[in-house]
Amino acid sequence: MTHLLAIGGSDAGIAAALRARELDPSADVTVMLADSYPNYSICGIPYWISGDVAAESDLAHRTGSDLEAAGIRLLTDTRAVAIDVDGRRVETVHAASGASSHVSYDEVLIGTGAHPVRPDGIPVGEPGVLPLHTMADAEAVHEAVAALAAGARVAVIGAGYIGLEMCEALIARGLDVTLVQRGPEVLSTLDPELGALITGEARAHGVAVATGTTVTSLTPDRGGTWLVHASGPDSSTNLLDAPFSLVIVCLGVAPSTELAVSAGAELGSHGAVAVDDRMRTGVPHVWAAGDCVVTHHRLLGLTWLPLGTTAHKQGRVAGENMLGGDRRYAGSVGTQVVKVFDLVAARTGLRDRDAADLPGTTPLSSITIADDHKAYYPGAVPLSIGVTGDTATGRLLGAQIVGHRSAEVAKRIDVFAAALHAGSTLDEVSDLDLSYTPPLGSPWDAVQVAAQAWERERRERA
Amino acid sequence: MTHLLAIGGSDAGIAAALRARELDPSADVTVMLADSYPNYSICGIPYWISGDVAAESDLAHRTGSDLEAAGIRLLTDTRAVAIDVDGRRVETVHAASGASSHVSYDEVLIGTGAHPVRPDGIPVGEPGVLPLHTMADAEAVHEAVAALAAGARVAVIGAGYIGLEMCEALIARGLDVTLVQRGPEVLSTLDPELGALITGEARAHGVAVATGTTVTSLTPDRGGTWLVHASGPDSSTNLLDAPFSLVIVCLGVAPSTELAVSAGAELGSHGAVAVDDRMRTGVPHVWAAGDCVVTHHRLLGLTWLPLGTTAHKQGRVAGENMLGGDRRYAGSVGTQVVKVFDLVAARTGLRDRDAADLPGTTPLSSITIADDHKAYYPGAVPLSIGVTGDTATGRLLGAQIVGHRSAEVAKRIDVFAAALHAGSTLDEVSDLDLSYTPPLGSPWDAVQVAAQAWERERRERA
Repeated sequence: MTHLLAIGGSDAGIAAALRARELDPSADVTVMLADSYPNYSICGIPYWISGDVAAESDLAHRTGSDLEAAGIRLLTDTRAVAIDVDGRRVETVHAASGASSHVSYDEVLIGTGAHPVRPDGIPVGEPGVLPLHTMADAEAVHEAVAALAAGARVAVIGAGYIGLEMCEALIARGLDVTLVQRGPEVLSTLDPELGALITGEARAHGVAVATGTTVTSLTPDRGGTWLVHASGPDSSTNLLDAPFSLVIVCLGVAPSTELAVSAGAELGSHGAVAVDDRMRTGVPHVWAAGDCVVTHHRLLGLTWLPLGTTAHKQGRVAGENMLGGDRRYAGSVGTQVVKVFDLVAARTGLRDRDAADLPGTTPLSSITIADDHKAYYPGAVPLSIGVTGDTATGRLLGAQIVGHRSAEVAKRIDVFAAALHAGSTLDEVSDLDLSYTPPLGSPWDAVQVAAQAWERERRERA
Repeated sequence: MTHLLAIGGSDAGIAAALRARELDPSADVTVMLADSYPNYSICGIPYWISGDVAAESDLAHRTGSDLEAAGIRLLTDTRAVAIDVDGRRVETVHAASGASSHVSYDEVLIGTGAHPVRPDGIPVGEPGVLPLHTMADAEAVHEAVAALAAGARVAVIGAGYIGLEMCEALIARGLDVTLVQRGPEVLSTLDPELGALITGEARAHGVAVATGTTVTSLTPDRGGTWLVHASGPDSSTNLLDAPFSLVIVCLGVAPSTELAVSAGAELGSHGAVAVDDRMRTGVPHVWAAGDCVVTHHRLLGLTWLPLGTTAHKQGRVAGENMLGGDRRYAGSVGTQVVKVFDLVAARTGLRDRDAADLPGTTPLSSITIADDHKAYYPGAVPLSIGVTGDTATGRLLGAQIVGHRSAEVAKRIDVFAAALHAGSTLDEVSDLDLSYTPPLGSPWDAVQVAAQAWERERRERA
């Protein structure tokens, strides 16, 4: 019987394994992972730190028993160190004992994910200077936070999704939180006009936000604290004058490609493993998916945009093809969402600045404010909706929405995402037959109000 | 200068007028309406009755002054009685004075809407037996409800959107509410398995629901009350044993086509005015849109599905074309949503029973329960998602969702609506790059979990 082996127990590996077992309940499927946390929700870590999630084990999408019940063999604490392509076997080292071994395969999937970048000057891993990517990292942060007195100063370096979610978690834990961000606003996945709303939301909830500020070094201070040194405007760097009891580093990730390279796979965009849309590496019987591989993007072509949603889809494609199927990954449009305190920020497709670099387009971006539902019904709130389109063709290129967490922002961005997937124009977004009832929408939904405002601006500029 | 005249001051007429003025700020545009409520939200009436909306005037999408500021001339209290097609003028009667007059036009839009059906045996319009369609109806109901003592018995006949919303409003007003519905469950826009959830929700909030019950007659009882007589199971008709202080009739509508017919327009599906996808009636310079016209449906072809969202779109198309444009109405997919107490029910495309009648398809429907967001994050609730697709092609034919009002049901149905608009398969719904963050979704959104469950069921039946 064909033996499918997935290396990596996160989204891509698990999705591949589940898909294979779904399509062929007799398939022989193994998932090998370097730690003992198969199928954990890395995205959920901030909610464990905050206390919203009571137990670490609640973060498992599925327990080990669930996976075994689905017919998947788990090899935990087993690190893959090399792939013998000719012999079709993976050389392994056991995490605890250090014992070497090997696992044979017929088809192998590399789902080694990504790892945090380690910028110069920041001694990540020193006591009190912690990364946050793996469950082991999460445990260290959880322990460090539990040891802090109320009101202790904590710095979060990097204001992406995890950085912002961690600020919210640390505020919930009663700490004094300073967020350091290189860009002009937090959440650089949004254009700055919309990112500013999130910067304001973080500040309104008590986070000291230093924008335009680049950390240059950390130096130890008394009692195990750290002084953070940075370049930026005085008003920002002043926020760093006192030492921090804990520094959490959330500066993004890079693809983990060593294993794939050692197997002979080539690298592509952003140094990620090159795969085709069937998740083939080109090395016989070696597949790859998830954060370690390039991303096929429906607007940008090949890029690298590591997201859990994408890893699931790529893994599912790989699982089917490793069984002999011929599924293609349909491609990402870069849809993302994050809750920051009482706001939700979402984005799909290209930002204004991304579109400016896209050959053959003349992008135009507009921002519209529209109520989430009829103003006469209680609880209506404004949505800020940025739309980017191509003035020549009227084609939708991207959208961004910021609004209250009650305003169905996430699923509104999904309407734009579906339209992007279909290659729609903004006019076609207006044509969509969207739902309406006064407590939940308007006869023209806010996304259509924004599409029509973009069309108006396009006409006025023509 | 070309004079555009819209007859009817609701969604279609106003949308046409606004679109014409948007595209040509010098256009000469008049909206004629039989009452004095231009651009009122008929969908908002239950929320005025409930007290959620403080003042009737709050239900105006735009005030008369707003419309005049947009350059639209309003002729209120002016009923169009005939169209002189050769003379290009509309014969009118003033509502109060009864004076006859006429208004000339170059292009005229008929947006006469629909009117409540008046079934045999129900003396609609008698004191205490009230319809609910126009603002005048709303005023009568508002006044009647205000005159009732707490706990007075009120019957609502018909459990569609307005009937259900009225039950909620009347419960909010402290009344004893009985809902009478002919079908096996309330909300026959859903398949019964999902409608049952709404029946249960109404009952849980104190509404006595008589399903499978057809009202045969009403007879006056003491003190101006009414006895409701019906056929149906004893257990249901028993709910009608005591008299009602007020009976509200919400039994649906029929297209108001007299004016169009008098102008020589032809009727089509369901007796609605036949128009092409440019909203032309075929009578020179006479256009029609909104609840009075047939609906171009992307799956069903020509049908009649009166909805405010559709009226807005058709009106907008007409307004552009009356100016000489060449816009086509892209077609409805029948997307609808309603909030009933703490649940939201939404639907797009075809129900199981509709699909069974569609030529060339072998429909399969499945119902899936999926959480709205990751179960580990507080507040996760189950969504019941019905999916109907064609087993031969895998094409999505329709979807229905019932879930808590916090669960972004409305915008989730919109994702299905966008996929239907694009003619997608269920597999392609899985391919959509939808947003994910633990507080708001899952790596595979609930709509994709349902799509995959449908695909699984299709495979198992193959």
